[in-house]
Amino acid sequence: METDTTTNNILLELRRGILPLAVLAQLYEEQYGYSLLTGLSEQGLDIDQGTLYPLLRRLESQGLLESDWRLEEARPRRYYKLSAQGKAVLSRSKEDWKRLSNVLSNILKIEE
Amino acid sequence: METDTTTNNILLELRRGILPLAVLAQLYEEQYGYSLLTGLSEQGLDIDQGTLYPLLRRLESQGLLESDWRLEEARPRRYYKLSAQGKAVLSRSKEDWKRLSNVLSNILKIEE
Repeated sequence: METDTTTNNILLELRRGILPLAVLAQLYEEQYGYSLLTGLSEQGLDIDQGTLYPLLRRLESQGLLESDWRLEEARPRRYYKLSAQGKAVLSRSKEDWKRLSNVLSNILKIEE
Repeated sequence: METDTTTNNILLELRRGILPLAVLAQLYEEQYGYSLLTGLSEQGLDIDQGTLYPLLRRLESQGLLESDWRLEEARPRRYYKLSAQGKAVLSRSKEDWKRLSNVLSNILKIEE
């Protein structure tokens, strides 16, 4: 029980670290929150709304995303997509991810 | 300039997410802070003392590490190693890492 809780903490930190990159990478094409949520989930990354929406707002305030409201099917939806700066940051972050994930896999002695 | 700062934020979050796992994996064999620091650095993961020491204390308070002081060369050193619980948590976290890192590499469209 103890062990499960602590495993979950380590796992939570890991997820928190990779989520910004995953979200950015999904937004080359514009999406609204719910479609992003289901897209990530289909790719194996479950994320709840209470985590996703604050993250989207933060990435937008950092200048990495742009958003606008659109009226569809009688209810407004906020669409997000990568800004030019977001594309540049994502491209560099990919290199960091490659390097860091190799480093950690080596430390964990995991065969690729 | 802007872009660099933001890239660094994304990178910082990524590093923060993977550090606990990297530190745990290094402590199958006991080490003191400085040897851990240099060991991680040699493997490509630079971390400063101001990040490492609080992390070690937190992992110990979570029951994942054990530590004791030893007097060597006239100055006391605190040695850390994985607890039994730490080994169990690390073992499960490796599986999570394998899965999550594959998911993110796929999302980022990075070839292994």
